[in-house]
Amino acid sequence: MKNKLAVVLVSGGMDSCVTAAIASQHFNLAFLHLKYGQKTEKRELKAFHDIANFYSVSKKLVVNAKHFSQIGGSSLTDNSIPVSQANLERRQIPSSYVPFRNANILSIAASWAEVIGALKIFIGAVEEDSSGYPDCRKSFFHAFNKVIETGTKPETKIEIITPLINLTKKEIVLKGSELKAPLHLTWSCYQNEDFACGICDSCALRLRGFEQAGINDPIKYMQPSKS
Amino acid sequence: MKNKLAVVLVSGGMDSCVTAAIASQHFNLAFLHLKYGQKTEKRELKAFHDIANFYSVSKKLVVNAKHFSQIGGSSLTDNSIPVSQANLERRQIPSSYVPFRNANILSIAASWAEVIGALKIFIGAVEEDSSGYPDCRKSFFHAFNKVIETGTKPETKIEIITPLINLTKKEIVLKGSELKAPLHLTWSCYQNEDFACGICDSCALRLRGFEQAGINDPIKYMQPSKS
Repeated sequence: MKNKLAVVLVSGGMDSCVTAAIASQHFNLAFLHLKYGQKTEKRELKAFHDIANFYSVSKKLVVNAKHFSQIGGSSLTDNSIPVSQANLERRQIPSSYVPFRNANILSIAASWAEVIGALKIFIGAVEEDSSGYPDCRKSFFHAFNKVIETGTKPETKIEIITPLINLTKKEIVLKGSELKAPLHLTWSCYQNEDFACGICDSCALRLRGFEQAGINDPIKYMQPSKS
Repeated sequence: MKNKLAVVLVSGGMDSCVTAAIASQHFNLAFLHLKYGQKTEKRELKAFHDIANFYSVSKKLVVNAKHFSQIGGSSLTDNSIPVSQANLERRQIPSSYVPFRNANILSIAASWAEVIGALKIFIGAVEEDSSGYPDCRKSFFHAFNKVIETGTKPETKIEIITPLINLTKKEIVLKGSELKAPLHLTWSCYQNEDFACGICDSCALRLRGFEQAGINDPIKYMQPSKS
């Protein structure tokens, strides 16, 4: 019987949904979502609640982190910076990078975990197949575990778990399919809220993952997948 | 001539004011303040702006971090938990501890610093003479510097500076006096917004510091200092 509690960071995207599926195997779940002025904020929040309903999660925290819009510096939160079309071969960090976003999210998660007594924080970060965001690397999460260890009460034991960190998008799709994760409820597009655009970084990575897995993406796109 | 930029975390209290005085010796300043549902939020914000005016700081960011009230767990943000009277000898962490607050603040500061190109983040944390908060220790800040190093862009060089970390409150008062920091503009009380209560943790530490330094505290108290 599951009686231990874990916080899961649920953006509403595919990776966080598969992460929730993995966490649900061994933990009772508490879902955390961040609204941070991203252009598809409403659609992501709907996906968050839909996935929470699917897993019967009642412990939910939605944080309005407006400071990312105040700070700017990313095409996701600053309307003066366009969302770039995907270029999965490029080496540089794309315009959608929100400076140090994961540190902000993990800090909130650790504060909440300390208050509700959760032992783990699950985050669906992916190192190899991601867009090259610096705060998605194993070394970053390793360093953040040290921060939690030194910055919380002595009796607090909270550990960040990154079950997808070494997977490709193809493997994430296969894992989600194996665990019957509700991928039809997820939203990944950085740009649109009705039909996914199919051409932003996030759509391109997702579509390539489904294609390589040989599985149809259950959500609707404006444009057909580029192969 | 000063041409490098530093973010200073300015709560509006004495420690952050003296920290700003130290930072102003070598850097242009950008002031960051967090509203987090603390009971004296308005008074602290006034102190923040007063200190910014004193140092002619125009680059200011005030972040409304409401999630601390949502999360609760501290007498500073949760009205159902009373602010305890000071007990400077006790060993346990007081009820005013806001879980993992400094990690949240530093994450926001690092996001902002990365966007505006600041090289340092000054924070007036005090290890020995503090109330025993775990996120005020040197080991915590050391670990957080690692998180910034691993979680920001490769070209980003941001370092947390804690100029007061080894000082006692007495030494902070003397340092502030030496640098002509505007201590009359600061606010430290956890409980009141008109006259400082004189009996909460923060008032008691402050009053003891002034008394040991042999300097009169320029702000007004409801009750005389307990000696």
